[in-house]
Amino acid sequence: MVNETQHTCSASSSSKSDGGSSSGSESSKDSSRCSTPVLDADRHERLREKMRRRQDSGDKWFSLEFFPPRTANAAVNLISRFDRMGAGGPLFIDVTWHPAGDPGSDKETSSMIIANTAVNYCGLETILHMTCCNQTKDDITGHLQKAKRLGLKNIMALRGDPAGEEWEEEADGFNYAVDLVKHIRNEFDDYFDICVAGYPKGHPEAESYEADLRHLKEKVFAGADFIITQLFFQSETFLKFMKDCQAIGITCPIIPGIFPIQGYHSLRQLVKLSKLEVPQEIKDVIEPIKDNDAAIRNYGVELAVSMCRELLDSGMVHGLHFYTLNREVATTEVLKRLGVWKEDPRRPLPWAVSAHPKRRVEDVRPIFWASRPKSYIYRTQEWDDFPNGRWGNSSSPAFGELKDYYLFYLKSKSPREELLKMWGEELTGEESVFEVFTCYITGEPNKNGHKVTCMPWNDDPLATETNLLKEQLEKVNRRGILTINSQPNINGKPSTDPIVGWGPSGGYVFQKAYLEFFTSSEIVTALLKVLKKYELRVNYHIVNVKGQNITNAPDLQPNAVTWGIFPGREIIQPTVVDPVSFLSWKDEAFALWIEQWAKLYEEESPSRMIIQYIHDNYYLVNLVDNDFPLENCLWQVVDDTFELLN
Amino acid sequence: MVNETQHTCSASSSSKSDGGSSSGSESSKDSSRCSTPVLDADRHERLREKMRRRQDSGDKWFSLEFFPPRTANAAVNLISRFDRMGAGGPLFIDVTWHPAGDPGSDKETSSMIIANTAVNYCGLETILHMTCCNQTKDDITGHLQKAKRLGLKNIMALRGDPAGEEWEEEADGFNYAVDLVKHIRNEFDDYFDICVAGYPKGHPEAESYEADLRHLKEKVFAGADFIITQLFFQSETFLKFMKDCQAIGITCPIIPGIFPIQGYHSLRQLVKLSKLEVPQEIKDVIEPIKDNDAAIRNYGVELAVSMCRELLDSGMVHGLHFYTLNREVATTEVLKRLGVWKEDPRRPLPWAVSAHPKRRVEDVRPIFWASRPKSYIYRTQEWDDFPNGRWGNSSSPAFGELKDYYLFYLKSKSPREELLKMWGEELTGEESVFEVFTCYITGEPNKNGHKVTCMPWNDDPLATETNLLKEQLEKVNRRGILTINSQPNINGKPSTDPIVGWGPSGGYVFQKAYLEFFTSSEIVTALLKVLKKYELRVNYHIVNVKGQNITNAPDLQPNAVTWGIFPGREIIQPTVVDPVSFLSWKDEAFALWIEQWAKLYEEESPSRMIIQYIHDNYYLVNLVDNDFPLENCLWQVVDDTFELLN
Repeated sequence: MVNETQHTCSASSSSKSDGGSSSGSESSKDSSRCSTPVLDADRHERLREKMRRRQDSGDKWFSLEFFPPRTANAAVNLISRFDRMGAGGPLFIDVTWHPAGDPGSDKETSSMIIANTAVNYCGLETILHMTCCNQTKDDITGHLQKAKRLGLKNIMALRGDPAGEEWEEEADGFNYAVDLVKHIRNEFDDYFDICVAGYPKGHPEAESYEADLRHLKEKVFAGADFIITQLFFQSETFLKFMKDCQAIGITCPIIPGIFPIQGYHSLRQLVKLSKLEVPQEIKDVIEPIKDNDAAIRNYGVELAVSMCRELLDSGMVHGLHFYTLNREVATTEVLKRLGVWKEDPRRPLPWAVSAHPKRRVEDVRPIFWASRPKSYIYRTQEWDDFPNGRWGNSSSPAFGELKDYYLFYLKSKSPREELLKMWGEELTGEESVFEVFTCYITGEPNKNGHKVTCMPWNDDPLATETNLLKEQLEKVNRRGILTINSQPNINGKPSTDPIVGWGPSGGYVFQKAYLEFFTSSEIVTALLKVLKKYELRVNYHIVNVKGQNITNAPDLQPNAVTWGIFPGREIIQPTVVDPVSFLSWKDEAFALWIEQWAKLYEEESPSRMIIQYIHDNYYLVNLVDNDFPLENCLWQVVDDTFELLN
Repeated sequence: MVNETQHTCSASSSSKSDGGSSSGSESSKDSSRCSTPVLDADRHERLREKMRRRQDSGDKWFSLEFFPPRTANAAVNLISRFDRMGAGGPLFIDVTWHPAGDPGSDKETSSMIIANTAVNYCGLETILHMTCCNQTKDDITGHLQKAKRLGLKNIMALRGDPAGEEWEEEADGFNYAVDLVKHIRNEFDDYFDICVAGYPKGHPEAESYEADLRHLKEKVFAGADFIITQLFFQSETFLKFMKDCQAIGITCPIIPGIFPIQGYHSLRQLVKLSKLEVPQEIKDVIEPIKDNDAAIRNYGVELAVSMCRELLDSGMVHGLHFYTLNREVATTEVLKRLGVWKEDPRRPLPWAVSAHPKRRVEDVRPIFWASRPKSYIYRTQEWDDFPNGRWGNSSSPAFGELKDYYLFYLKSKSPREELLKMWGEELTGEESVFEVFTCYITGEPNKNGHKVTCMPWNDDPLATETNLLKEQLEKVNRRGILTINSQPNINGKPSTDPIVGWGPSGGYVFQKAYLEFFTSSEIVTALLKVLKKYELRVNYHIVNVKGQNITNAPDLQPNAVTWGIFPGREIIQPTVVDPVSFLSWKDEAFALWIEQWAKLYEEESPSRMIIQYIHDNYYLVNLVDNDFPLENCLWQVVDDTFELLN
């Protein structure tokens, strides 16, 4: 009978009738020991395990390769691209190593920092490339230690291009990728997952195709976990290579590198670098249209789609690796046409998850940073535990300071001129600020005809969920309740709900209504009188820039405002209103008035003084309606406040 | 404006506009640091703080004094009394120290173990008395260390009665209670709250009333936190004493000791021991009715009530300490008539909370021990953290073994003869066992006319909540689904609901339907077929005594089955179905068949063999319906199973 079932695990056989010893231990797993529920089993797995699981389940996957940009602005754009392309569900991304660009440094554009951002701030499983030739052992060890410290778990071990024309092997030096693989395994045991490069046509410098296969086998036997190949132009090239690999005993995953042709010049350059030959039939198509970028890209997409289909149909290929050239359109198009792009990526939690191993059990955050997840991750990067690091104690500030405020990934994506168009070239009073907030909510253009698509506290347009509150938000912003964060109450909607759902299917999600806004002290005075009537129902925190703090929260305990109930899981409460962290958030929220908005204007200008006045005199308020099964009372609270003022 | 509000806390003044430093730390508290939500602020407070808070809020309280019993059976009864009288909401109980009874030993009847049980297993704030005369410093330190280790936090420091008639002070010895107070403060700093005795008429051995007051002042100045007085017969006695204490500078709380007269002989004995004189007007009433126990008790209750009223009405008394003489009726009656007995003690959590300081953040338990909370506390006593100790890992058993199975507080309260009447003098087959389970559910007498008020897995009658399921439970037990634990699904009832509510008011409580039962392998085979239809909805664990374990639970993660949402709090999920601990529970649950039931019968007797057969062959099953907002499907699952069998 036992054998009939799907999941059978046999515990120790204890038939002692005196109560015996606890026999549960043998069938337990380490994972059951962790103190937080885990929605996303992936977060605990190594890349090679994820790959294996996808292969076992027959679930096709893709990955994306990027190179580090040259300028800080380009880096900001690339990171937005990580966020957008990350939404399609790549199994991992990888970041190339540019020896000339100080790749292990702390520069905004270094390979190391770009990979760090991808892992920690974009939540992407990331492979960092690393080359070894012309480098000392100490340098390489230093890079690897730094990568580990930053939370990187995967390395693509490469030889790299020798610096000079005449390259000679150094005795005891790192002459080949295999030396790097061995070094990583010697120094870091099994910590990193290691990827190596395969050459479907053989490495251009290898004595022969066969010799190159033997080198590849050496790399794998030295400890590499999987192989990504150089680009190729025909599926047969890869499939033959794969069979040859298997024939000489290479059993690890081999992932084909796909290069969607995106333009004439990029193709020529790549071919030159890789010393590959473009098949005549491709040349025949491209040459006549070489000045028509769109036509070449369309052809490239077609070609890539049909080659990928052949690869997937062969049954030998489970994942596809894309050389994106840091571009978005062609690769996304290919992936969508192949049906492997996730169109509806379910949120595992209602906020972006970091892929840093130490954050893998993180399952709760203060709601204040809902629109600034990267800032939250940055400010909590020194925490040792999640969620038990939590929000500070009386002796030490738990939140990292904002001293690196200009850190590039916290910058607004829009340039100054665009911000001025949205937020006003010239402000004439507090009302013109109300107007900006109102336009952001409604989506209507401002009086100069520009839509307000971002705010200092929200770099993105209004969330779909917030749209549910649009009408009320518009009304209150117009009157000086300047909202920066809100959510409706939800009483048990399915976790698959397209607007408010999150987490695995079969669950139910809940929310308490939340409203956070800046407002004048006059309104706060009236609001506090009104709130007396709601004492048991509404929790509030009201604080000004000086830290004067008014609250009715009991014992400074956090108030859960989003939670989910799932089959076979513990309760997850991803967002809370935490009184302690609110005071850290307050500093950031008030600073944004000055840093992002006031500083757009000349010093001493009336516009700047208006923002400065608001910064100095307004209060930041948050309200929670605890009675989530009833109709949201926060709008009534605001209405009552305005009525009292009249 | 800020001053208008109820709660104002001022954070550090940070007006730096560059984002500044995190200024939240100064207004935060240690309590916000703990990783678990706390429903009951009391649990974090020291006794003296609780006393102070009650005094400040004008909330009258009471406490109860018990002495250690002489026999193990009497100890079992006393512990049931702790549970019953604990429900009335005493601020604390205290346990006297009997030097002749080996009070610091591990005997079931020692003062130390009785106090340990009160704290750890009954969840009562407890004061352990301790006397010092005729004892060595090392002995006393040893007792105190042991008390601390067991989680006791309060000591009543007493001199005790000298052993011989002729008592002489020892130089450097412990001659007076003040020596013990000093010793505790020297050796344990501020760890313990210390109580000392006050004598409203002066200590019988003191030179004078005034000299005794000076001794009391010495004890307080040596570090005592509050005073409990010797009994007295008139409120004026106490009020005068209190004023005299205040006059010489004693400012700590002074709690009157109340002795409801319960019988002629106990009064005479107490008077002899305490060397007090009974006022003539009381003697005049009692002497004529000295052989009528009921009349004396009624008079004692009247007298105590009117004296307590006078004390409370004086405005000087906030708490009343009762000398219970280990009896229940008189004291409970007085407390009820005074209106200080809590008639509806809201559960802070859906299970008994231990008062051990290390368990004060405990907020989740496996549901399996719902009816055996003392066993759960006992088996997890070695855990260092709550809730993060959780339920074990693969290498070490997390649950203490059941080797001390006969530990007195795990015993059934009913004697063998009574159990035989309930569970059958002679069993004729599995059906007679079904009949016992059915009678326990229905409350109807069995065929011999005896009600079944307890079962090996439930020492108490059916919970009110379980009554909601009575009809269905009866039906399935009759057919061999032998239920030992169940709860209905609840979709957001108010936390004040009289049947399923718990926690502070203003909240909402939820449950997933749960059913746990023993059943034959034949029924399990059919059940597993039926469960295939419910794969996504119902989680199950099915295990036999040998540990063969069948489950569809993902990754051995716990499944929350009871949770509550409260104003200004994090989510609380007090009970879960945890796959790992289920295997520890399984050992206990199967062992109860043998230990509590089979062993009632002669070895080799047919009755014993029937129970042994069930123990050896039945499965223990638990089912959770994850769709708590829908109608409970578990009854349908069981119906389908029976249908399949027919």
